[in-house]
Amino acid sequence: MTAGGYQKGRLRREDIISAAFEVYREFGYHGSSLREVAKRAGITHAGLLYYFPTKEALLAAVLERRDAEDTEREKLDIQPGMELLRHLIALAEFNVAHRGIVEVYARLAAEAVAPDHPAHDYFIRHYRIARESAVATFKALAESGELRPGVDPEAAAVTFIAMEDGLQVQWLTQPDEIDLVGSLRFFLQNLLTIPID
Amino acid sequence: MTAGGYQKGRLRREDIISAAFEVYREFGYHGSSLREVAKRAGITHAGLLYYFPTKEALLAAVLERRDAEDTEREKLDIQPGMELLRHLIALAEFNVAHRGIVEVYARLAAEAVAPDHPAHDYFIRHYRIARESAVATFKALAESGELRPGVDPEAAAVTFIAMEDGLQVQWLTQPDEIDLVGSLRFFLQNLLTIPID
Repeated sequence: MTAGGYQKGRLRREDIISAAFEVYREFGYHGSSLREVAKRAGITHAGLLYYFPTKEALLAAVLERRDAEDTEREKLDIQPGMELLRHLIALAEFNVAHRGIVEVYARLAAEAVAPDHPAHDYFIRHYRIARESAVATFKALAESGELRPGVDPEAAAVTFIAMEDGLQVQWLTQPDEIDLVGSLRFFLQNLLTIPID
Repeated sequence: MTAGGYQKGRLRREDIISAAFEVYREFGYHGSSLREVAKRAGITHAGLLYYFPTKEALLAAVLERRDAEDTEREKLDIQPGMELLRHLIALAEFNVAHRGIVEVYARLAAEAVAPDHPAHDYFIRHYRIARESAVATFKALAESGELRPGVDPEAAAVTFIAMEDGLQVQWLTQPDEIDLVGSLRFFLQNLLTIPID
């Protein structure tokens, strides 16, 4: 393949992933089909199969892109503690401005609770990494006296992640009634001895 | 129809609703089909259409049954306050022992964030009722001095419901690692001045 051909193939691949993202948002993974994704991407079914031979391969590519975007936004070099909490609040603000991302995440997370779902292992990893990072943050806050006395860092981590997930579904259902970012701040403030802002 | 025939029809209807529940749990609403539900219920497709002429009619019946079961379990005559919180913790304990109910709820809630989903209005109503009940409870706790000073009852209500939803998905994904009921207690305890137990 020429350099131009390679570049074109890469772009085509990215287009297909974007189309898959939209189809998952509307129908979930189980309700999606490669035919529908091909149609949205303006490519033939056979053409799509050249890039993604199975539904699972396409799902893996969508999740990989999400991780790549997250890693960029989450700036993983930030030290655990208040700075990380503030950064996660900024990430929630970003999400509120990008409803589609949140919708796909919420739908796939709910589908993937089934152990035989092809994204199940992805979400297990996702939750483990998120919890580890949150535990490290709450432990750092405990050491610096910024965590309220008696608050268990492990329980704070599990409930913080649950709060993010749960607020997303409630906000997606009633975007005009639910203040996602304000509610997340409220939750965190109740765990801290210093003002979050 | 004879009394026996009526009774038989009622049982058949209940069987179909139970089959639909299982199909939603596995495939979500969008991924479900009346044909698959008929197959699981051991009835012909035409036979099912006699009871439920559309996918939407069947979904409505599933949600109605869920509400009827919830109303029974939630014992709505309980006064807002500590007793209601303890009752909701007991409900969470019940749910942990009945994973299927939680799975269907989590899947439908994530699907129904789309305004054109046939369960969308159901979930809007569900969240409004749940929030009203929770606000009344946290206001009662504030009046009796059992809510920590400075905790806003409205924010407590939104985050309490988000906590229930978010813990469900995390627990469904990793049932051996997540203590759903303990995490819910942790969250509530942080809002209260008195021990929850």
